Amino acid sequence: MKCRAAVAWEAKKPLVIEEIDVEKPREGEVLLRVVASGVCHTDAFTLSGDDPEGAFPCILGHEGGCIVEECGPGVKNLKPGDHVIPLYIPECGECEYCHSTKSNLCQSIASTVWTGYMPDHTRRFTCKGQPIYHYMGCSTFSEYTVVPEIALAKINPAAPLDKVCLLGCGVTTGIGAVLNTAKVEPGSTVAVFGLGGIGLSCIQGAVMAKAGRIIAIDINPSKWAMAQALGATDFVNPKDVNGSISEYIKEITNGGVDYSFECIGNVHVMRDALECTHMGWGVSTVIGVAGAGQEIATRPFNLVVGRTWKGSAFGGVKGRTELPGYVERYLSGEIELDSMVTHTMPLDDINRAFDLMHSGESIRSVIVF
Amino acid sequence: MKCRAAVAWEAKKPLVIEEIDVEKPREGEVLLRVVASGVCHTDAFTLSGDDPEGAFPCILGHEGGCIVEECGPGVKNLKPGDHVIPLYIPECGECEYCHSTKSNLCQSIASTVWTGYMPDHTRRFTCKGQPIYHYMGCSTFSEYTVVPEIALAKINPAAPLDKVCLLGCGVTTGIGAVLNTAKVEPGSTVAVFGLGGIGLSCIQGAVMAKAGRIIAIDINPSKWAMAQALGATDFVNPKDVNGSISEYIKEITNGGVDYSFECIGNVHVMRDALECTHMGWGVSTVIGVAGAGQEIATRPFNLVVGRTWKGSAFGGVKGRTELPGYVERYLSGEIELDSMVTHTMPLDDINRAFDLMHSGESIRSVIVF
Repeated sequence: MKCRAAVAWEAKKPLVIEEIDVEKPREGEVLLRVVASGVCHTDAFTLSGDDPEGAFPCILGHEGGCIVEECGPGVKNLKPGDHVIPLYIPECGECEYCHSTKSNLCQSIASTVWTGYMPDHTRRFTCKGQPIYHYMGCSTFSEYTVVPEIALAKINPAAPLDKVCLLGCGVTTGIGAVLNTAKVEPGSTVAVFGLGGIGLSCIQGAVMAKAGRIIAIDINPSKWAMAQALGATDFVNPKDVNGSISEYIKEITNGGVDYSFECIGNVHVMRDALECTHMGWGVSTVIGVAGAGQEIATRPFNLVVGRTWKGSAFGGVKGRTELPGYVERYLSGEIELDSMVTHTMPLDDINRAFDLMHSGESIRSVIVF
Repeated sequence: MKCRAAVAWEAKKPLVIEEIDVEKPREGEVLLRVVASGVCHTDAFTLSGDDPEGAFPCILGHEGGCIVEECGPGVKNLKPGDHVIPLYIPECGECEYCHSTKSNLCQSIASTVWTGYMPDHTRRFTCKGQPIYHYMGCSTFSEYTVVPEIALAKINPAAPLDKVCLLGCGVTTGIGAVLNTAKVEPGSTVAVFGLGGIGLSCIQGAVMAKAGRIIAIDINPSKWAMAQALGATDFVNPKDVNGSISEYIKEITNGGVDYSFECIGNVHVMRDALECTHMGWGVSTVIGVAGAGQEIATRPFNLVVGRTWKGSAFGGVKGRTELPGYVERYLSGEIELDSMVTHTMPLDDINRAFDLMHSGESIRSVIVF
């Protein structure tokens, strides 16, 4: 079939709206009509050329709200009309990661997802006769896309897809990092570094975990109003701090925070985030994605005295099992999404969504098809 | 009173057996007769001059088995004749660390312990008219020493002090790191880097935790017999491995170990220890003490995919509360100490204990007074 999509022909260049061909879904695959897609920093990271796994030309996008159009042979639990959120980390239910209660990192199709192919090592997109790479197994910047059934979370059709698409990445990543990875406890003091979509979602998660004090840290003070609305109690601009930000946070928290989250992808901030936690029990969780080859460092003494350095991908959430519950929590008012969608636009304006993200004006832009 | 002690007059020089003066215990302090003392790598580290907190002249030693000689005013729960193990991490029972279930790092007297003074900022040792620094609050390389009551674990007097002295540092550190810090689970695969007293004790801890596979790693194969006797199942000499030791460990364990422990103090090995753990759930615990200013590093992706980097001091064990139980576990045969004491000697031969440690011939030498 033919449809319209935003094609990333090469790194560092604007996306181009093209007519593309989408092949039928094969064994275990599902053809989806994309109703809405968030635009996330990870899309921009790959487009920047810094992502060593980025393969061009590709169709970016991985925060989708979709409706099943057609099921390929062997699809068991989905039918046309079902509402789904594509998962860049699938859940096959059979690998050692799916069997583990400690991990959501299903590896069943990892070798193809991260190289831009479908599980059978082929692709479903072509444009002007040229094959186009998939992206994170989702490619939601297209009117239609093809995704394996094991990478689709079936959700309540009552949920508006132009909102719950954010649960396909940023919001779930932030909330899950707090609840699943760090396991923040009631009364804890929490520091969140970086107030993009993920950082704001960490604040939501900290509120859900009943944290006692939530310190929001960003060099852009225009982010604070939203952070406060979501439940942050303290605001720090590192530009206003003389000397070490980690020492400053320790000063204002009587020794350090119980939990910290790095939501930027800056290895120096990751170090600050670790070192501002309390000796004896501080836990710092890395969420941001750093550039290729960059490393984090600290003195080992900072760990020996009882700090823990962790990381989180998709918030430790097993997508097919847990994501439908996140959608229900949105519907019941426990998770806030509406105010995080600061801009909506048609596919034709998608490059503006990247501009708004880079300028810090948007929290999330959502493409509505 | 006068007694004999091994004085470290300056860094990098042999200890000198001297007659010293020991003052009476003051408020809350206890005069101890030292019956036995282990010689630990940490003593050697400070003597090397690499310890930025090392203050000379001092009396080293922190693995003591002692009998209470005299109690100062205000001592509540000890009396002459009680058998005790001095604690370089005290347990006041009143600070936020003692109140926390997550930490053993009582800070009540930390500002003086680590600078070589008693809690009232004075010292109890003089030699030839010159004041001598305390060391880690213990200074057990002396026939008599003075320690605050809050830094003394009262133990079963049936336990031989020339064996259970090892519970004052190395053995408890290793076992506790496995049981308290990493919380190794039955059936787990464990890697232990460095087979000194702490590494061998990690192996003991892994056996106590019912680990399924215990990989012992050391460049000195003469350590393997003891590791095997204690329960290690696999042995790796990094010198026999072409390329990355972490990749090699991942190969032989189908993706990596569940838990690893660094028991050397080498920041490069700390990185290997983290990176050889299994994606999704691997936990690496730093126990070794690195030289001043040295740093650990890794790509943050190694954490984002579900690994955890922790550290442990004195095995996370609250000394006054938990150490008596470790002594009971030795008496019941659950903890092995006897075979770890490879050499005993009188105080006069203490420099030989350091030589045996540096040459790798001893696991632990115990000074018997």
